[in-house]
Amino acid sequence: MPTPVPEKSEDEVPAPTTDKGYRQPEVDVAAMRAVLDGHYAEVRDLVRANLAEHAQILRDEEKMTTADFRERVKDVVVMMAETGQTGMGFPEAYGGGGDIGASIAAFETLAMGDLSVLVKVGVQFGLFGGAILQLGTKTHHDAHLADLVSGRTMGCFAMTESGHGSNVQALGTVAAYDTATQEFVITTPDDASRKDYIGNAAAHAELAAVFAQLEVDGERHGVHAFVVPIREGGRVLDGVRIEDCGPKMGLNGVDNGRIWFDGVRVPRTALLNQFAEVTPEGRYLSPIDNPNKRFFTMLGTLVQGRVCVGGAGINAAKVALTIATRYAVRRRQFEATSPEEEQVLLDYGMHQRRLLPLVARTYALHFAQEVVAGQLHHVFSGETDDEHGRRMLESRAAATKALGTWHATRTIQECREACGGAGYISENRFAALKADTDVFTTFEGDNHVLLQLVAKGLLTDYAGEFEDMDQLGMARFVAGLAVETVVERTSVHKLVQSVRDLLPGGDTWDQEAGLLDPNYQLAMLRFREEHMIGGVARRLKRGIDQGQNPGAVFSRVQDHVIAAARAHSERLVLEAFVAKTAALPDGDLKVALNLLCDLHALSTIEADRAWFMEHGRLSSARSKAISREVGSLCRKVRPLAVDLVDAFGVPEEMLRSPELLTWTETGPA
Amino acid sequence: MPTPVPEKSEDEVPAPTTDKGYRQPEVDVAAMRAVLDGHYAEVRDLVRANLAEHAQILRDEEKMTTADFRERVKDVVVMMAETGQTGMGFPEAYGGGGDIGASIAAFETLAMGDLSVLVKVGVQFGLFGGAILQLGTKTHHDAHLADLVSGRTMGCFAMTESGHGSNVQALGTVAAYDTATQEFVITTPDDASRKDYIGNAAAHAELAAVFAQLEVDGERHGVHAFVVPIREGGRVLDGVRIEDCGPKMGLNGVDNGRIWFDGVRVPRTALLNQFAEVTPEGRYLSPIDNPNKRFFTMLGTLVQGRVCVGGAGINAAKVALTIATRYAVRRRQFEATSPEEEQVLLDYGMHQRRLLPLVARTYALHFAQEVVAGQLHHVFSGETDDEHGRRMLESRAAATKALGTWHATRTIQECREACGGAGYISENRFAALKADTDVFTTFEGDNHVLLQLVAKGLLTDYAGEFEDMDQLGMARFVAGLAVETVVERTSVHKLVQSVRDLLPGGDTWDQEAGLLDPNYQLAMLRFREEHMIGGVARRLKRGIDQGQNPGAVFSRVQDHVIAAARAHSERLVLEAFVAKTAALPDGDLKVALNLLCDLHALSTIEADRAWFMEHGRLSSARSKAISREVGSLCRKVRPLAVDLVDAFGVPEEMLRSPELLTWTETGPA
Repeated sequence: MPTPVPEKSEDEVPAPTTDKGYRQPEVDVAAMRAVLDGHYAEVRDLVRANLAEHAQILRDEEKMTTADFRERVKDVVVMMAETGQTGMGFPEAYGGGGDIGASIAAFETLAMGDLSVLVKVGVQFGLFGGAILQLGTKTHHDAHLADLVSGRTMGCFAMTESGHGSNVQALGTVAAYDTATQEFVITTPDDASRKDYIGNAAAHAELAAVFAQLEVDGERHGVHAFVVPIREGGRVLDGVRIEDCGPKMGLNGVDNGRIWFDGVRVPRTALLNQFAEVTPEGRYLSPIDNPNKRFFTMLGTLVQGRVCVGGAGINAAKVALTIATRYAVRRRQFEATSPEEEQVLLDYGMHQRRLLPLVARTYALHFAQEVVAGQLHHVFSGETDDEHGRRMLESRAAATKALGTWHATRTIQECREACGGAGYISENRFAALKADTDVFTTFEGDNHVLLQLVAKGLLTDYAGEFEDMDQLGMARFVAGLAVETVVERTSVHKLVQSVRDLLPGGDTWDQEAGLLDPNYQLAMLRFREEHMIGGVARRLKRGIDQGQNPGAVFSRVQDHVIAAARAHSERLVLEAFVAKTAALPDGDLKVALNLLCDLHALSTIEADRAWFMEHGRLSSARSKAISREVGSLCRKVRPLAVDLVDAFGVPEEMLRSPELLTWTETGPA
Repeated sequence: MPTPVPEKSEDEVPAPTTDKGYRQPEVDVAAMRAVLDGHYAEVRDLVRANLAEHAQILRDEEKMTTADFRERVKDVVVMMAETGQTGMGFPEAYGGGGDIGASIAAFETLAMGDLSVLVKVGVQFGLFGGAILQLGTKTHHDAHLADLVSGRTMGCFAMTESGHGSNVQALGTVAAYDTATQEFVITTPDDASRKDYIGNAAAHAELAAVFAQLEVDGERHGVHAFVVPIREGGRVLDGVRIEDCGPKMGLNGVDNGRIWFDGVRVPRTALLNQFAEVTPEGRYLSPIDNPNKRFFTMLGTLVQGRVCVGGAGINAAKVALTIATRYAVRRRQFEATSPEEEQVLLDYGMHQRRLLPLVARTYALHFAQEVVAGQLHHVFSGETDDEHGRRMLESRAAATKALGTWHATRTIQECREACGGAGYISENRFAALKADTDVFTTFEGDNHVLLQLVAKGLLTDYAGEFEDMDQLGMARFVAGLAVETVVERTSVHKLVQSVRDLLPGGDTWDQEAGLLDPNYQLAMLRFREEHMIGGVARRLKRGIDQGQNPGAVFSRVQDHVIAAARAHSERLVLEAFVAKTAALPDGDLKVALNLLCDLHALSTIEADRAWFMEHGRLSSARSKAISREVGSLCRKVRPLAVDLVDAFGVPEEMLRSPELLTWTETGPA
């Protein structure tokens, strides 16, 4: 092993101003906020005002008993419903706002406040209301929508079961049709099939959208949803047993419960019959023949929940970043640059590295979320509704939900640590932010399961067969294709082709392009995605060709499957950020967003630079150059940092943290 | 850009049994536990028995008010004190056990239970008791030790101030000597100097070890500690003001408070005078002339707290891993290998990748902790007490504390997510584990600040000047040295030299050595450490040579400083694991530990493989080979996983999680 030789390239400490001619932009906070708020600025401001009005609830959580806090949360939800905030996505005829995009924007913004309120809103209006609206027909709409939109009737969404979790198709609750009485009989056959973690179930819901195996004359037709009364005037109805899930890590303002059904009878019309029907005499009818396809079509209507949770994660991260960034320019620690004065935290290189790439990534995810929310709006408003569009939307929603919620967990943790011991005091917001958001990575689809869904789409082409396939089938299917076929079907393949035309130069293209060229950054992420998808296809193929069990092969390559889906998701996020920035008129805002976009792109590449080196896409010298550039971009973003987080528009009342944010040299102001 | 070519090396799906001749070891759980428990098995079992006896407290936390829970925690602490468990580190003459090593083992094991109890024990016996024992002399011992060891007198450790945090040397509380009355007058000059986050202060402490600037005749002599009564019979004394810190993210069984002193008078003998004295007539005397050195000597006696917190983090991680691993072999999810049966989670490749390297790392950190606890015992028992030994111990304690507590945060989070929604229910332990351990990364020294301490030692040589230097001074000092001098002073340099002799072959050494050769693994970590230390020295030197402000240069290279300290810490951990394993007699236990040691070493290298590629120590082919080997090791560890976590010896009562752990195909058992 040779003695290490000093390497010029990495040891150079750049002089404070490396970029001659670089002029620091000024961030007009209001203008940047307008860019972020976009089309739905008005709705977002309504939610901000509601949050500020009910800010006391952040304090109540610390003091009230669980029972009292649940009532308080319910009251706030109903009061917010009265302002129209929570009903944006329902038809105007039933008291809603008739604008799906607005409902997403409202929900996202609500995540800046107490998250029990957010989740209760999600359960009532998103899950329960969404099931009635999307899976039901006019009878159900007329019977329930007006009451649920106003909050007069509370409902819950009884899908998840203790023993099945993410595998909804395998759930055990049965709804057997009794032709004699023209009723469905709903039964929980064993404890593995009890409904579990059901929000709104332990205290408030009077109705439940229950997912069960529909059975007629002993024949199973798969999972369907039914409207089932479970409480009346606060009393649990006969045949229904409800147990409180008890204390949770967070979200204790939401009353989660377990439900068992013991032969509960509901009329034939209780079946939410948008996609299937049972005639009075007991004939099962559906416009969708394939049971698998029918199942995924029903589930697909619930995609809005995933889009909402992803957006909520991103917005909760904004709260944490606003507090930590403001704290970092007030708090002084140790004498670093001068013996007389301690240095503010954000002037430390390490502190910049910890916080600023997270600010950049929050902007990136915000714009990616804007894209998926827009797609949702178009598809569900019927503007661009086709099979392929739905599959693309579902995949994109899964991708954004996974990245957005992991980002929340990571960002809130980093911000907590960056505020030291003070970050541990409940008043300073991180306690609730951490505890409440932690389950976001798991609910509305476990992130790993969601990324597998994304990968399935990539491997088998969205338009086609994938919703019909389980993992075994998928592995067999992919094994039956040429790898090239798999790759050529992906949208990224066409993009990679066009990158080749754009950046000619054979193998050296990545050496010549500038690090700050968005085409270079995108080309890197596109190459990674295409290569990973191809790699998974080859691995599946080879394993099955060798005669191994397809499921075992899939299990063994699972980390590659997840990695490919992540690579795909990251590419979508960067594309959204680049497109948003490019569309802005020239000026300081654009310069600032370009800095953030570069910081996001290069820190994303940096995080996986090992992979790029392993696959010949980065030399070690260029890899080091990327790390240096990330450091340099952090220093450029540093003076803008407070304005950039202020542009998130988190209401001051939601920050609390008096001691973190108003501290001066001699104590709290 | 070329079309991706299938690469043999990465696409190979190895057949289920790649290693011909590999025989799966059997893990004798009791024997493995004996290896882990080591010399202090008896003490650890005493603590396990105490934890089981007081297991009800895990449930009480969910139901009691904060005020009641604080009393409950205090009662448990006193009951545990009666068994001798918490006083192991005090002299037998005062009712202690006279064995410092035993006190560390007891504290670590206590981390398997309720962590408010742990932290209250740490405050009372470690911090407050430690200050009296280490900084005080016989007068103080006679006056206080017997009462504090028994828990009859509760005390607190009033060091941290709101405005200064980690910068203890800059704290603002003043203790001015009044010659006329022979008293110290203790004053909080401003709100930035109030004592903050002080455990035991809000409700229970009668005495406080107060850190303040000692002033005689207007002359400052630096920070010293004083015993100050703050409560009597539950009433706060005149001149003392105490405020409750209010609800916290976790550890709400510990009464944290803020303290202000308004001219509180204590006798001259209240000064804990092990290292300095003020004579009745007001002369300041100390055997240590240099005030900086005196300060670090005093602080150094408190190193035990850091050793304890690091160990606590590692043991809290064991609880999470035991639950998540057992759950992963019970819980089935989706039909993967057969259409008839859902597959257990731990048979999924991704799930193995998520959990098993964390199991391996927990073993690694456990043995590294054993080494530092042993060093502490030797130094503080006076067996090997010299200046250099103390510095080495302090550095090692800082390194282990940082890695151990970050490991806890990361592991508990991963385990929570690996248990899905069920992991979010408080009964299943993760809620408390997460919330309570979160502050471990911050208290007893913020991890980043600690790693800077480690780096200072590496850069300036432990034996010498480093305790006298602030960051400016350190940067100037390093800039004045030849880089080679810095590197040659480090212990790793000698190790790298010997590796060269061991593995000749010039630049190709790493290509030829087997991945599973511990010498190869250690050589990689040693090379990284040496190179990073050299890199930091070169960067500091160059910046200062260019005329930049030393503090600014330090700030800019801060992430490299932290990285170098981490690399050093990782090397120490791996060395401890390799040494432990090598010393075992041949047999199945050794085979199993070798698997874990390989898994830990290679996943550590894998995590930083980008750096190794950037610095010419890994080819891309070999880097991929390491990732494949990690996957293969996970599959080999998989059948042993439950036995390996059971060997941690977490009492069953501490696992709770009835639904996670006793679930069967048809519901909870």
